[in-house]
Amino acid sequence: MDTVKYLLNEDQMPAAWYNVQADLPVPAPPVLHPGTGRPVGPDDLAPLFPMALILQEVSQERWIGIPEPVRDIYRQWRPTPLYRARRLEKALDTPARIYYKYEGVSPAGSHKPNTAVAQAYYNKEAGVKRLCTETGAGQWGSSLAFAGALFGLDVKVFMVKVSFRQKPYRRGLMEAYGAQVIASPSHETEAGRRILAQHPDSTGSLGIAISEAVEVAAQDPECNYALGSVLNHVLLHQTVIGQEAMVQLGMADDYPDVVVGCTGGGSNFAGIAFPFIGAKLRGERDVRIVAVEPRACPSLTRGKYAYDFGDTAHLTPLTKMHTLGSTFVPEGIHAGGLRYHGMAPLVSHLVELGHIEPRAEHQLGCFEAALTFARTEGILPAPEASHAVKGAMDEAVRCREEGTSRAILFNLCGHGHFDLQAYMDYAAGQLRDHEYSEEEVAMALAGLPSVG
Amino acid sequence: MDTVKYLLNEDQMPAAWYNVQADLPVPAPPVLHPGTGRPVGPDDLAPLFPMALILQEVSQERWIGIPEPVRDIYRQWRPTPLYRARRLEKALDTPARIYYKYEGVSPAGSHKPNTAVAQAYYNKEAGVKRLCTETGAGQWGSSLAFAGALFGLDVKVFMVKVSFRQKPYRRGLMEAYGAQVIASPSHETEAGRRILAQHPDSTGSLGIAISEAVEVAAQDPECNYALGSVLNHVLLHQTVIGQEAMVQLGMADDYPDVVVGCTGGGSNFAGIAFPFIGAKLRGERDVRIVAVEPRACPSLTRGKYAYDFGDTAHLTPLTKMHTLGSTFVPEGIHAGGLRYHGMAPLVSHLVELGHIEPRAEHQLGCFEAALTFARTEGILPAPEASHAVKGAMDEAVRCREEGTSRAILFNLCGHGHFDLQAYMDYAAGQLRDHEYSEEEVAMALAGLPSVG
Repeated sequence: MDTVKYLLNEDQMPAAWYNVQADLPVPAPPVLHPGTGRPVGPDDLAPLFPMALILQEVSQERWIGIPEPVRDIYRQWRPTPLYRARRLEKALDTPARIYYKYEGVSPAGSHKPNTAVAQAYYNKEAGVKRLCTETGAGQWGSSLAFAGALFGLDVKVFMVKVSFRQKPYRRGLMEAYGAQVIASPSHETEAGRRILAQHPDSTGSLGIAISEAVEVAAQDPECNYALGSVLNHVLLHQTVIGQEAMVQLGMADDYPDVVVGCTGGGSNFAGIAFPFIGAKLRGERDVRIVAVEPRACPSLTRGKYAYDFGDTAHLTPLTKMHTLGSTFVPEGIHAGGLRYHGMAPLVSHLVELGHIEPRAEHQLGCFEAALTFARTEGILPAPEASHAVKGAMDEAVRCREEGTSRAILFNLCGHGHFDLQAYMDYAAGQLRDHEYSEEEVAMALAGLPSVG
Repeated sequence: MDTVKYLLNEDQMPAAWYNVQADLPVPAPPVLHPGTGRPVGPDDLAPLFPMALILQEVSQERWIGIPEPVRDIYRQWRPTPLYRARRLEKALDTPARIYYKYEGVSPAGSHKPNTAVAQAYYNKEAGVKRLCTETGAGQWGSSLAFAGALFGLDVKVFMVKVSFRQKPYRRGLMEAYGAQVIASPSHETEAGRRILAQHPDSTGSLGIAISEAVEVAAQDPECNYALGSVLNHVLLHQTVIGQEAMVQLGMADDYPDVVVGCTGGGSNFAGIAFPFIGAKLRGERDVRIVAVEPRACPSLTRGKYAYDFGDTAHLTPLTKMHTLGSTFVPEGIHAGGLRYHGMAPLVSHLVELGHIEPRAEHQLGCFEAALTFARTEGILPAPEASHAVKGAMDEAVRCREEGTSRAILFNLCGHGHFDLQAYMDYAAGQLRDHEYSEEEVAMALAGLPSVG
C-alpha cells in the first residue's frame, strides 16, 4: 500500500485557535519590564503591537476565534494534507505508523503564513501602515512579505547579514512580494550602528536583527513590529496545524503515541504539539511530545531556564525561557530558522512541567534522514524540518527494535526548495557538526540579566 | 470576497487519461523514419521506450486507464486545487472570472511529475533498470529523478550546460533524489564529443542534450529514454489537469470561454487544453484556446509546420511540427522550459486545424504580470507559467475594455521558488527582450530536412 493522504474539507478547517494557556496547571511566569522588573502591561507593548495581538498574548481563553478574512486567506492552502508515510515505513522496515503534517503547501513554502496572515490582518484593522520584522533564513520574512502584499501593508525586513549574502533567493522572494530587505546590522538604526562601530565585519544574528526591527517600529507611529515565533500569540496562530492533524488522524482511526516537532523559536513545534498537550493536560488522552533542536543551538537541552532579553540590544521585555544568553551567536548551521538563542516561553514552561522531552541532533544526521525521506516520500524537507524527520525516524527505528507498533506524528513544517545549497554542501562533504564546550556555554550564560 | 479554492475529493481524481487523437477530425501526420522516410513502427521505438508507452503514442482510444500504482502516487498531491483569482480580478478591475489550476503543489513544484510517475511506472513494469533523459531549466529532470527514486530506477540526466552552471539548485534537487546529473554537451557520448570537437565552449541546448540521452539509452539494453514533453504519450499523461479543472469549474457552475496555457514543448498546455478541445471537437461545448509562447523562441508563431528532428544530432525520428529547425539555439531567456526548437505534433496539428490561437510574448511583460499575480494571489509563478499569467491577464483586461464578463481558465503549471535569480535579474533591470530578425528565422529554417 502506498503513502496515504488524509484531506479535510474546507468546512473542517478550525474556526478558532487553541490557547494552551487555558489548560496550564501552573500559569507561565509573567513578562517583565527590564527597567522596573515588574510585569509589563498592555500599554508597554502598544508601540509595537496592535491591541488585539497584545490581548491574545495574555489571554486565558481556551479558544480564540479566527477572523473570517484570515480564514478566507488560509483557505488558499488550508487545511493542509496529513500523510501516512507508508513508503518511509517500508524503507525503515518498521511496524510504526508514521504520519506527517505537511505545511510546505503554503505560498511561502512553510508554516509561517499561518501567523503572518493573522498578524497582518490585525495590524491592518488597527490602521497600521507598515510592518517591520527580522528574518534569519528567510522563511518568516517571506511569509510576512506575502501577507503584507495581500493586506496592502509595506513590509521592511532586517535580514541577518550572513543569510542576506548566502541566501539571495529568499531575499528575492521577499522583494518579489514587494518587501524592502535590509542586511543587518545596518546603518539604519542606532542598534545597528552601535554593533557596526564595535564590529564592522559583523555578519549579524537574529538577536541583532530583532533589535533593529523593534527600534524602527518603536519610533514610527504608523509602523508596528511583527515577530515570527517565540511569542504566545504567534504560537497560538500555529495551532491550526495540530487541530487539523487531530481530525485527520481521526479519519485514519488513529491517535499519536508520540508527536515530534523541531524547535528554533518554537512556533511550528507548538503548532503541532499544543492541541495534543492540551488533551493530555485536560486528562483526555496521554501522549509523548518530543522537541528536536540542533546541537549547535541547544537552548532547551543546554540553556538555562531564566529571564532574558529577546534581542541583543536589550530593547525587548524580559521573558522567562530556556536561553543561551541574548549575546550568544550560534554556529552557522544550515537550519537558519533554528538559530535563536532563546525558546518560546510557553514551550519552555511546558518543558519545565515535564510535558515535553527535548532532544538535540547534529545536522549531518538530520540531512541524512532528510534524504531518506525525500527518496521515499518524495518531498525534500527544509533543513529545519529535517530535525523533526530525524526525530520521527529514530522513534520508528525504536519501534522496530522493540517490535512495537506506535503511531508517530511529526510536523513537516516546510519544503527545502530554497535550501538546495545546504543539500549540495552536505553531499560534497562540506558540512561539519558542532558542539559547544561546557566552558563556551557557561560563558554565554554568564551574561544573563539578574532579574526574576 | 476572497480568492476561492475548488477542491476535489480523491475519488474525483480522473481514472483515465484523455486521448485527443480519438476526437481529431483529421489524424495527425505519422512519425517518419529518417532513413526510409516511411512511418515508424513500434519496433523502431522499442530500444527507447517500453511497449506500453509506444502503444499510447499511437493509440486512438479516447480514454486510457491510469494504473492504480500511478494513481496511488498522484494522490500525494492530486487532485490539485483550482482557484478563482478574486484578488487578481479586483486588482485588474475586470468583470472577467479568472480561474487558475495550480500544479505547483507537486513534490517537484510543477506539472511534470504527472508524466514522470507514469513513465517510471511503465518502465519499471517492463523490467528496465535505468532511465536517461535531458533537462533544460530542470523541472523535468527533477520530476523524473523524483519518480525514479520512488520506483527504484537509476536516473541519468543530461542538463544543458548553461543551466547546469546557472541553476545549480535544480541540479541539487535532482541529486537529492539520487539522480546523476551531467553537463551537456559531455564527453560521455559520441554526440557530445562531436559537438565539443567543433565548439569546445558550447553551452549546450535541449536538442544536443536529447541527442546524448537518446544515444546512451539506445546503447544500453537495460536503459530506456524518457522525454518530458512533445510526444503524444507525454501530453496524454498531463490531461488529468484539464479533466480535474472541468469538474472543478462545474463546482463553480462555470465553464471557460477561453483556456490559456504556456507552450514550450507543449505538455502543460495540452494538459489543461486538450479535454476542453475534445469537448469542442465532439460538438459539446465551444471554447477559445490560447497558447502563449516566448517571442525569443517562437516556434508556433514564426516556425514552419514541417517534418523535423527532435534533436541536434538527428538520432530521433522525424515528426511534423511547428519548428525553428533542430539546430536553432534560442536566446537564453529565463523561461528555460520554453526553449525548445519544436512544438508537440498534436499541438501543432490542432493549430493547423484552427483550434488553437498561438500568441508570442516578450519576457519582460511576463515578469511584470507574474509580480502582479504574486502580490495579489500570493503565489510566485515559474517564468514559464508567467507566460500563461500574462495571456490570461490580457484577456481579462480585454473583458474590462469591452465591459464583458468572460470565464478565463489558465494553467499555473509551476511555482517560481527555483527561479528567484530570474526575478532578481528582472528587478535589477538586467533582462532584455529579444526578437529574431526575418533573416535569422529564415536561416534557421533553411536547415530543415527535405522529407514529408
